[in-house]
Amino acid sequence: METAKTVESAGKLIRQARKKGKTIGLVPTMGALHIGHISLIEAAKKKTGYVVVSIFVNPAQFGRGEDFEKYPRPIEKDLQICREKGVDLVFIPSVEQIYRGENLTWVNVEKLTETLCGASRPGHFRGVATVCVKLFNIVGPDAAFFGQKDAQQSVIIKQVVKDLNMPLEIVVCPTVREPDGLAVSSRNQYLNPQQRKDALCLYSALQDCLKLYRQGTTGTKILIEQMRKIIEQVPYAQIDYISIVDSESLENLKKIDRGALVALAVKIGSARLIDNIVLDFNE
Amino acid sequence: METAKTVESAGKLIRQARKKGKTIGLVPTMGALHIGHISLIEAAKKKTGYVVVSIFVNPAQFGRGEDFEKYPRPIEKDLQICREKGVDLVFIPSVEQIYRGENLTWVNVEKLTETLCGASRPGHFRGVATVCVKLFNIVGPDAAFFGQKDAQQSVIIKQVVKDLNMPLEIVVCPTVREPDGLAVSSRNQYLNPQQRKDALCLYSALQDCLKLYRQGTTGTKILIEQMRKIIEQVPYAQIDYISIVDSESLENLKKIDRGALVALAVKIGSARLIDNIVLDFNE
Repeated sequence: METAKTVESAGKLIRQARKKGKTIGLVPTMGALHIGHISLIEAAKKKTGYVVVSIFVNPAQFGRGEDFEKYPRPIEKDLQICREKGVDLVFIPSVEQIYRGENLTWVNVEKLTETLCGASRPGHFRGVATVCVKLFNIVGPDAAFFGQKDAQQSVIIKQVVKDLNMPLEIVVCPTVREPDGLAVSSRNQYLNPQQRKDALCLYSALQDCLKLYRQGTTGTKILIEQMRKIIEQVPYAQIDYISIVDSESLENLKKIDRGALVALAVKIGSARLIDNIVLDFNE
Repeated sequence: METAKTVESAGKLIRQARKKGKTIGLVPTMGALHIGHISLIEAAKKKTGYVVVSIFVNPAQFGRGEDFEKYPRPIEKDLQICREKGVDLVFIPSVEQIYRGENLTWVNVEKLTETLCGASRPGHFRGVATVCVKLFNIVGPDAAFFGQKDAQQSVIIKQVVKDLNMPLEIVVCPTVREPDGLAVSSRNQYLNPQQRKDALCLYSALQDCLKLYRQGTTGTKILIEQMRKIIEQVPYAQIDYISIVDSESLENLKKIDRGALVALAVKIGSARLIDNIVLDFNE
């Protein structure tokens, strides 16, 4: 396994792989790798011949008062995981490598960034979209791999790739869950044992929604209200949003009459947790 | 010479050239080709092995009440010029090819887009930056060629390429002028014979500024005032701006103590004309 800390050294190694006829897969991460990331690496290994994992805690996607400083950075452990999983190149740039000189250019996505997490995290998805475009241009992958857990992010990145005619495929992999159902996240480590139990309310609410939908409930007001009740059983759980939206346009639905994304964000202690499920209309 | 009307057919032809080991040069234009464009084609022929000219009148860079509808589109003449000049591929997409479905993604450049032409043409450079990123991604050129006449555009595109880590070189070619000094522009054809004479005031003002600077005048207020006087000798000439700015940051200068861009925009009849010169500090 190779590692590269600069744009130039990463580019050189990737061009060498390309010359050998290999297709390139990119798994963009902020490190603190867990089984969710590992599932992305495995998907990339299956689909492409040279797998690049980028590890970059991107300051531009953190707002004021968010956890940029304390975001976990267990770099040795991350490298060990990549080595074991057969990653070809780990790209670990500094902030100065990615934002050289004064960065004046931003990739803005209208509408899709203004709802769900975008509403309470202004600028977050501008930072995500911009850093993804940078990484796509540095690495030049044939495919890049994202997790369904960050559903809004995946929808936005797909839109960027379409709108800017970027020559790569976006592959979205299923959310990986702990045995009890909690969606795996680097931020779960902020939870103490009681909060870890409480955090299960996100999954419970989604499962309840799925059950009601399968029983024939399609009105979103009632589905959301039911999820709210489940979350509110947890003292101190702070709901950011519980939404049911069109799975492509992310516009609120009154009734589930097409593919729907059921998404929620809840603060448990200092950890802001998100989760979602997709309801197929034909289900 | 090949022509392509779709993203797919252009991509296919360019990949074939790439496979033959050729480097790719892109001259992005809005058509109505003149000797300014021809100088870009010639520069591209010198530097790269496969020259692509794109002809696309980009609606996103025209504001309300601007000349999108009446912008000249002499496509047969343009193709003839490209053929004579040895262009390999002319890419002539429809608006629907470039803006597929709903376009939600925009490339925004801070600061550099807010001054000079950006101040009176809000959204113009957002449209320019976005379409250039699209074209760069579709064509994948090693180098793209722009004219110094659109000085602000060149500065912005260079910034975009740096900030988004796009793998190409931006080559800026000198302004081409008519024998009497008027900068060549597709919009010059909007001028009637009297306006054509009047239009020379832009060049005269710039030449006067250069002369004064060489004689030792470095205060920009006095230089701008002098240029204003020259323009105002033309009845009905409407000055949009006369500015002297840092040639990289485009920030206004009080004194020429570094590389400076002297730029102006003047409306003569219905034609909004721009011109500029660069004053080297070491001159």
